[in-house]
Amino acid sequence: MGNDTTNSVVQYSVKLRHPQLPTAFCAALSQQFGQRFVQTRAICEQHGRDESCYDPMPPQAVLFVHTTEEVADAVRLCRQYQVPVIAFGTGTSLEGHLLAIQGGLCLDLSAMQQILAMHTDDLTVRVQAGVTRKQLNHALRDSGFFFPIDPGADASLGGMAATRASGTNAVRYGTMRDNTLALTAVMADGSIVQCGSRAKKSSTGYDLTRLLVGSEGTLGIITELELKIYPQPESTAVAVCSFADTVSAVRCVMLAMQTGIALARVEFLDKHSARALNTYAKLNLPEQALLLFEFHGSAQGVAEQAQQVQEIALELGGGNFAWATAQEERNRLWAARHQAYFALLHMRPGGRAITTDCCVPISQLADLIATTEQDCERHQMIFSIIGHVGDGNFHLLMMVDPAQPQEMALAESINSAMVERALACGGTCSGEHGI
Amino acid sequence: MGNDTTNSVVQYSVKLRHPQLPTAFCAALSQQFGQRFVQTRAICEQHGRDESCYDPMPPQAVLFVHTTEEVADAVRLCRQYQVPVIAFGTGTSLEGHLLAIQGGLCLDLSAMQQILAMHTDDLTVRVQAGVTRKQLNHALRDSGFFFPIDPGADASLGGMAATRASGTNAVRYGTMRDNTLALTAVMADGSIVQCGSRAKKSSTGYDLTRLLVGSEGTLGIITELELKIYPQPESTAVAVCSFADTVSAVRCVMLAMQTGIALARVEFLDKHSARALNTYAKLNLPEQALLLFEFHGSAQGVAEQAQQVQEIALELGGGNFAWATAQEERNRLWAARHQAYFALLHMRPGGRAITTDCCVPISQLADLIATTEQDCERHQMIFSIIGHVGDGNFHLLMMVDPAQPQEMALAESINSAMVERALACGGTCSGEHGI
Repeated sequence: MGNDTTNSVVQYSVKLRHPQLPTAFCAALSQQFGQRFVQTRAICEQHGRDESCYDPMPPQAVLFVHTTEEVADAVRLCRQYQVPVIAFGTGTSLEGHLLAIQGGLCLDLSAMQQILAMHTDDLTVRVQAGVTRKQLNHALRDSGFFFPIDPGADASLGGMAATRASGTNAVRYGTMRDNTLALTAVMADGSIVQCGSRAKKSSTGYDLTRLLVGSEGTLGIITELELKIYPQPESTAVAVCSFADTVSAVRCVMLAMQTGIALARVEFLDKHSARALNTYAKLNLPEQALLLFEFHGSAQGVAEQAQQVQEIALELGGGNFAWATAQEERNRLWAARHQAYFALLHMRPGGRAITTDCCVPISQLADLIATTEQDCERHQMIFSIIGHVGDGNFHLLMMVDPAQPQEMALAESINSAMVERALACGGTCSGEHGI
Repeated sequence: MGNDTTNSVVQYSVKLRHPQLPTAFCAALSQQFGQRFVQTRAICEQHGRDESCYDPMPPQAVLFVHTTEEVADAVRLCRQYQVPVIAFGTGTSLEGHLLAIQGGLCLDLSAMQQILAMHTDDLTVRVQAGVTRKQLNHALRDSGFFFPIDPGADASLGGMAATRASGTNAVRYGTMRDNTLALTAVMADGSIVQCGSRAKKSSTGYDLTRLLVGSEGTLGIITELELKIYPQPESTAVAVCSFADTVSAVRCVMLAMQTGIALARVEFLDKHSARALNTYAKLNLPEQALLLFEFHGSAQGVAEQAQQVQEIALELGGGNFAWATAQEERNRLWAARHQAYFALLHMRPGGRAITTDCCVPISQLADLIATTEQDCERHQMIFSIIGHVGDGNFHLLMMVDPAQPQEMALAESINSAMVERALACGGTCSGEHGI
């Protein structure tokens, strides 16, 4: 490494007031990893941000690792020299997980991309932590199976496990908690542990696999995972339906679930999301409270479920049913749903979106969304609400100008009030993004 | 308490070489709990056994508790006086969990029978730990919902969570791990903790709920649980089908699952189980490898699934399909399945059954069962095999005469060899009974 790069890292260290990385520590990493140990400013900056609204806080160095053993070696050195360490997958987290507030070393696992085993007879696969969900599904495509967890971003599976990610398919297929059978992780002392097994069930000892899932790197760095996969459904249908208000839309989902209809996905979009998407993605959605349904099953099963849901929706005043069974049309609708965040950003160029992630018992959901909407409207906030409504989980997105402290404070107070209401009715402040 | 009862407890203490319970400890419990603190021999003996093959080891005293606070009070006293403590639900565990090998106090939670809340809109209920699964289902009967986890015995829900129980419905509905959303537990220092929430998902912090589920009382005593419930299926059908051998039966289940058929239950019974059940329960089962299927769904959905499974079974040489849709007939078949243990006991009066609980990836199951069968046959063991085959979990039951040490040693060696094979192919020695 030349002086330039070293200097720029020093600048950062000074700016953030971190002690410089110990020379012997850097020398040891350079010796073992050569050019995969990087202190250049651009690379560090890239690794000090995620998709949250926070300002970046770069680590002091980045190490590109290839194996579990390399992670263990690096962690042992971090421990020896008391250097903080953060694991990096794809940088798509939403709560500032990657911000190196204490500086230190970022371990980039994105090159750990091997699919180690496909046990289609057992409906499991084993992957390195850097494999992304889309890469896995690409590899599975011709096998007749798929991996359902879909947080929107093409995140790494290790990162998804670390943050207990879920997304649109969770209502039917569960979250990373339910779909991680076993894992390999590196502990803080550099030891390598194996938790869980390929067996579907176990009653032997503590469930350390689920303890690590969702631990956000604080207990260890996940390097390999054994995941559940599922048969690709014989038939899939998507439907959009509009409602006069949030209460009716949420009630429709509750009744469908109480009837035992196995919704594969059911997403709520408020009128602001619909409007933003119409502008941004050139769609023609009714600008009302919307539900976006997906059904999986046999052709006959899907038709039956869809019919039942349509009957429930009609009773609640739902209308404008639009069906999509062709793959292309379905993909277009789901792509739109995943663009809701960017569509809102587009509504206020130069602004920043503050995302939230409350999850409550579904009986409490309509009330909480309605109160939150009123709060935002009273304060003339530019906002939208999207929700994994089958799980009682929703995201309020608020557009703010980060240069306006009073706007930031207002958004913060709306969020705080909402979180307190969520906690008071038995919910949580984060359904899937982490803390 | 009279002298007689005190004496008999002392006798036990001496026999098992436990130090006598401290007088001040007994006095404190007597004062707070009156006649609910018991040291009589019969009660202690009742609480020192489960349904395993082990000889009873009674605790030195039993306390009948009614509330979480009472559990906390008792645990605080146990800590103060260094007295071992064991929680008791219904005494139906299978691995000697209740044996007081160090003496001490047994906390009997069976009177904690309140159903605290029914949130049918949220598909959750909150119960005290002593409520049994049948009591819960009785209370739910007219609501249109049910609780699916069925380990056979009418166990307490607290005990089921503590041992991470599952049973016949797990292939569709998961285990206690998947169905326990939140819980209240008393820690070793007597503090009361609440874990989890009524929200279906959470990414906030460590998953302490799943850490306690399956911890078998070693981390705390579960006193209340928030559980998932499910809509009662519109339609249910049960089918029995026979196969020439284990391999074909297991292959049938694998193919059905790979096809995406949502089996509600699928149980394997070997020819020995079939023969024992025909004798014991006066059935007329084909004395071959059997699969017992259950399907849940709409009338149309059930018919379609059943048709698909029948086609797969026929291709694998399955025959003698017998259908049951009437409730009474279905109950008769499932009661028979749950009697498999007692039916085998009946084959050797005075003998004792050693149960085992291996769980492996389903692709490994047929081989493991076949090798185990050969082992047992070579040693002329009286045995049967039943399995939650959809989960890769099976129970080998071996009838032994506990007075014959060489029989016990033989059973132990067959079990050890089987467990080693299970571990070698990625499985576990206990799928659901605990350790």
